[in-house]
Amino acid sequence: MTDRAALARTFLEACKDRGILVATAESCTGGGIIALMTDMPGSSSMVDRGFVTYSNEAKIDMLDVRKETLDRHGAVSEETAREMADGALAHSRAGITLAVTGIAGPDGGSEEKPVGLVWFGVACKGKPTRTEKRIFQNLGRDYIRRETVQTALELGLDALGN
Amino acid sequence: MTDRAALARTFLEACKDRGILVATAESCTGGGIIALMTDMPGSSSMVDRGFVTYSNEAKIDMLDVRKETLDRHGAVSEETAREMADGALAHSRAGITLAVTGIAGPDGGSEEKPVGLVWFGVACKGKPTRTEKRIFQNLGRDYIRRETVQTALELGLDALGN
Repeated sequence: MTDRAALARTFLEACKDRGILVATAESCTGGGIIALMTDMPGSSSMVDRGFVTYSNEAKIDMLDVRKETLDRHGAVSEETAREMADGALAHSRAGITLAVTGIAGPDGGSEEKPVGLVWFGVACKGKPTRTEKRIFQNLGRDYIRRETVQTALELGLDALGN
Repeated sequence: MTDRAALARTFLEACKDRGILVATAESCTGGGIIALMTDMPGSSSMVDRGFVTYSNEAKIDMLDVRKETLDRHGAVSEETAREMADGALAHSRAGITLAVTGIAGPDGGSEEKPVGLVWFGVACKGKPTRTEKRIFQNLGRDYIRRETVQTALELGLDALGN
């Protein structure tokens, strides 16, 4: 088992211990978080659903991200990550949701928002939603997506108090 | 580039040539199809969204799969695959949708529906929705999921007339 697979297992088992299901809201990872979690046999009892909101329209339609938020702050922003996590919680049976929105490259970066910038949101029922920012080294699209998946799981574990 | 990555690229380029976006509706692959497609740089101009409907409730909520269909035919059935593909088309901006529902194991199989059984649905705007059944060898969960991703892309290309 890879380190990432072990981390996904630890996260899912922590959710199971608490009797809660998981949902994801993914932009730059394109479903990579939920795909990794569902690699695990038996994950169907822990994973509810995933919203892969690659386009802005998908973020609005599926997660109720506000158009004003996207217009004002951009798809890769703290505000969008927060609304994605909250939207996934509102539109699922999950007790915890992991949201990611970032710039995996190779294009799409700017001085203000470089390739490698990722915003994370973690929403848990009954708790304030957390957000986190990372700027990963621009070592390629695969690297940035892998680091993003790993960090999302670590932040999820952290939010559960593990 | 792996064969699967090359296949995903060929499929996305065929969609781009036709000016249509792609959406997926995934159960057993858990987002693996859209994760593979979005590995490709530039995929954001071709991929709209993904519905990872791991639970039955998610299939009903996100894709309008009918409860009667799930009760009568089961989540792994031709009827569910068809309704998933149609639901993804109705709830996205995509011109083609790829849907998969199957039993990746190691548990969950039966004599009638063995581990390795996967139903596929491909919906294209203005065309009849296609369904296909495969029974993959039970060579493990990873193998079944990988074969499912590959077959979904092949069926998508076929539906586009490539």
